[in-house]
This record gives sequence, structure tokens and C-alpha cells, in this order.
Amino acid sequence: MKILISNDDGIDSLGIQVLANKMKEIGDVLVVAPKTEQSAVGHAITMKIPVRVHEYKKDGYFFGYAVEGTPADCIKMGIKNIMRELPDIVVSGINHGSNAAINIIYSGTVSAAREAAIMDVPAIAVSVASHDATEFEYAAELAKILVLEVMEKGLRPGTLLNVNVPDLPADKIKGVLITQQGLSKWDDVYEERIDPYGKKYYWLTGKIIEMDENLKADHYALNQDYVAITPIHFDLTDYNTYDLMQSWNINTNKK
Amino acid sequence: MKILISNDDGIDSLGIQVLANKMKEIGDVLVVAPKTEQSAVGHAITMKIPVRVHEYKKDGYFFGYAVEGTPADCIKMGIKNIMRELPDIVVSGINHGSNAAINIIYSGTVSAAREAAIMDVPAIAVSVASHDATEFEYAAELAKILVLEVMEKGLRPGTLLNVNVPDLPADKIKGVLITQQGLSKWDDVYEERIDPYGKKYYWLTGKIIEMDENLKADHYALNQDYVAITPIHFDLTDYNTYDLMQSWNINTNKK
Repeated sequence: MKILISNDDGIDSLGIQVLANKMKEIGDVLVVAPKTEQSAVGHAITMKIPVRVHEYKKDGYFFGYAVEGTPADCIKMGIKNIMRELPDIVVSGINHGSNAAINIIYSGTVSAAREAAIMDVPAIAVSVASHDATEFEYAAELAKILVLEVMEKGLRPGTLLNVNVPDLPADKIKGVLITQQGLSKWDDVYEERIDPYGKKYYWLTGKIIEMDENLKADHYALNQDYVAITPIHFDLTDYNTYDLMQSWNINTNKK
Repeated sequence: MKILISNDDGIDSLGIQVLANKMKEIGDVLVVAPKTEQSAVGHAITMKIPVRVHEYKKDGYFFGYAVEGTPADCIKMGIKNIMRELPDIVVSGINHGSNAAINIIYSGTVSAAREAAIMDVPAIAVSVASHDATEFEYAAELAKILVLEVMEKGLRPGTLLNVNVPDLPADKIKGVLITQQGLSKWDDVYEERIDPYGKKYYWLTGKIIEMDENLKADHYALNQDYVAITPIHFDLTDYNTYDLMQSWNINTNKK
């Protein structure tokens, strides 16, 4: 089994190292990850400047390829220019910090997996719910189990699994739930500062507004100490509105 | 009616100027757009560096605010720090180039509208299907009609309209269709070059693989000279797989 691994925290992060080591137990692993942190870049791709690729060593041994680009770039580059064939699966992570509810939209980790799904490769994004997480072993073991499940059962084309794991010892985790993207979102605040030259600048800050109160919602389930697995798809069509709008009469004065 | 306008081509592009002028016919317009081109940045937001905002003049008159950031940043900044209240609607564009099928995922134009939808503001993204487009009048008129329709009929929370207009004179456009996100996607090719210092670098190039052959698909409808209006939503959950996966028995050796 050929496994392509990426993330958005950068190739030197602990999470991707633990993930790569775990995946080596079940397949041939190729790591292609951003050279530097790419959190919150969403599904950005690099077109206005060229992309560069470097061999990256850890502890003196080849670990993978570091790409000067986004997580989505890494998947494109990894499949098209390095593997030169489709992997059996892509696993993205293990992210330092959760990617649930609205954060799915902003996440580079999820976008790497989604780029794979666009290429008809099954994919899993894995995150541990703390930016200060140091314990990735349970999440890595779960990722391994899910890779084997996905290989056995398959995913429909275009679907990926977004997995969020509480930052807790395994025996404190209440269980694994299949969830939906929750509605919790950010109340953004721009913190205004003045630079040494007298000019204003702004830092994006804010806090999450909790919108969900049931275990179907990924963010809520995660906060209740469950693993939340949300299947997502790259088809954004709102089919309810699609049906409803067929009756709209959009008059542009055409005969 | 308060209308917030943004784009991804940058505040100095022709498309946003035509759009802003047209919207002034029906409401109070605020333009908050990227200072420089932000195509293909997807739903990236700026968190690692601060954001700066500048007043931008056109022909000697105040036109809007130029943000050193992404299209999604512009919507957050525009609503939270400049308007300081929710607009009635956000219109993003008019983009130079189509944003149909898989390009919806990469588009900054669509992501600006989607950021509005996340904030419960109805939103419309408008694109003309040529990077060399110079004729935006029909698209602007259509945007005006759609804004009035949306104000009258409403959109369900979280939904936005992604509008693609053929780059043709109005009398050559066959009509307006309500469509779905097509499956056409890129066959990526990284063009390898050597810099003056002997190092390799890569340009992302490629061509679209046509996957759709019916007028329900936005990309196909557009190529057949129809306006394609696709309602999209920020909820990425794959509900079919969600139902299916309830029967998966994910064994993590927990009791």
C-alpha cells in the first residue's frame, strides 16, 4: 500500500513525524509537506510564484520532501512530480489543533486531504485538539485503523474523512462518533496596534461562538471528549436551494 | 440597502469598478478589496502576519479600502472593523476568469462570498469567463437583478450564489441556468525550469479535464454559452457517507 503524507504545520512538526512512523507499519510512505507552517491557508494553491522542492532530513536520514508552497501544492506536487502515480491513500496531519466546525473551511490540513479527494484518492485528515498537543500516539493508531477500514470498505469518489481527536490520554476518550460539520464559528476581533513608524496594523483574533449542542456536531462531540469523524466532500452545491431556485424567474430582458 | 463589495483580482481591477458602479444604483456601497491580486488563494485567512488597511482612490476620489490580505480577510475586516454592522448583502467580483467546477474550491472570489455566508449575510460571487474579459456590463446588470431577487426571496443561512457569465455580448448568451458544481478538474503539470543559479523550480500549469456533459453542470453550461448560477453552501458534510458510516465498527480497543 502506497501512502502519501502531508500536513499544514510544516515538515518539521512532531505530528507528521509520529504519523509517518505509524503509517510505515502498514505501507510504503512518502512524505511531501510544506517547508514552513501553512495553517489557515485553506485550499490556496501557488500559481503566481514558482514552487521549489527540497529533500528534508531528520536525524541524518531522509524523511521526505519539503515544498515551498501550500498543503494543496504538496499533494499536487507529491502525486504528479514525485510519486508519478496515484497513491492508495493520502493521510494529512497529525495537526496540532482541532479542525472542526467552521475551521474545516480555513484548514490547510483538511485541504491537503481534499486535494487528494479531487484526484480520486481516498484521504483522511487527522487533528489533535490542542495547539500544545504532545501526545499523538492514540491519534496515529486511530489513523492506522481508519486507513485499513477505508482500504477495505472504500469511500465514494470525492469524499474524505476529517478526524478530530481530543487531546487526552486514550483512557479518557469516551469513544468514536461519526459526525457532521458543526455550525460553531468565530467571532472575529481585529486587534489594532501602532507600528514603530506610527502606522496602524491589525491582528486577527477572536473566540469561537458555540452554535452546536448535540453529539452529531463535530466540534461539540470533540469538546465532550469524543473522537469526531466527519465525512466531507468537495461538492459544495446546495441541492435544496438548487431545487428551490428552479422556480426563480430571472428576467434579464432576453427573449 | 447596504452592499459590501470585494473580489480577488485586487481593488484596482476593472471588474470591481464596474460592479461597484452598478451596485450604487440600488444601495449604499462599501468596497473592501485586496490591495494586490489574490487569485487561487482559496479560503486563506491572514493570522501569522498583521493586516494593514489603506484608503484607495480612483480618479482622485475615494473608491474603497485596500486590504493587505486575502478576500476572506477583506470580508472579515470590512464587516467587523469598517462597517461595524452586517451589510444586507455581499457581492464579490466581477472576477476576470470563470470560477466553475473545481475552480470554486480554489477561488478567492467565491471564498469572499462564502465568508459572508458564514456570517449569515447573503452573498453572490460573479465571474466572467475570460481572463482577458473587458465587457462586464451584462454581468453587472445580472448581479443587480440577482441582488434584488435575493433581497426579495432570501437565501437559506449559509448559502451563496456562484454566478458565471460567458464572455460574450448579451445577445449571444443563450439564457440563465440554475446549475450544480461540475466535476471538471485540472490535469496538473509542473513545468520544471532551472534558475540562473542552477536550482530547479516549478510552475504549476495544466489543462481542464472535461468531466461533465449536461447542462446541470456549471462548467458545461458556461461552455455552452449559458449563464450558470450554482447555489453553494459552507457545510461540506457528505451526508450519504455520514449515514453509511454509522454502521462502521471502528475498533480502537476501547471497552
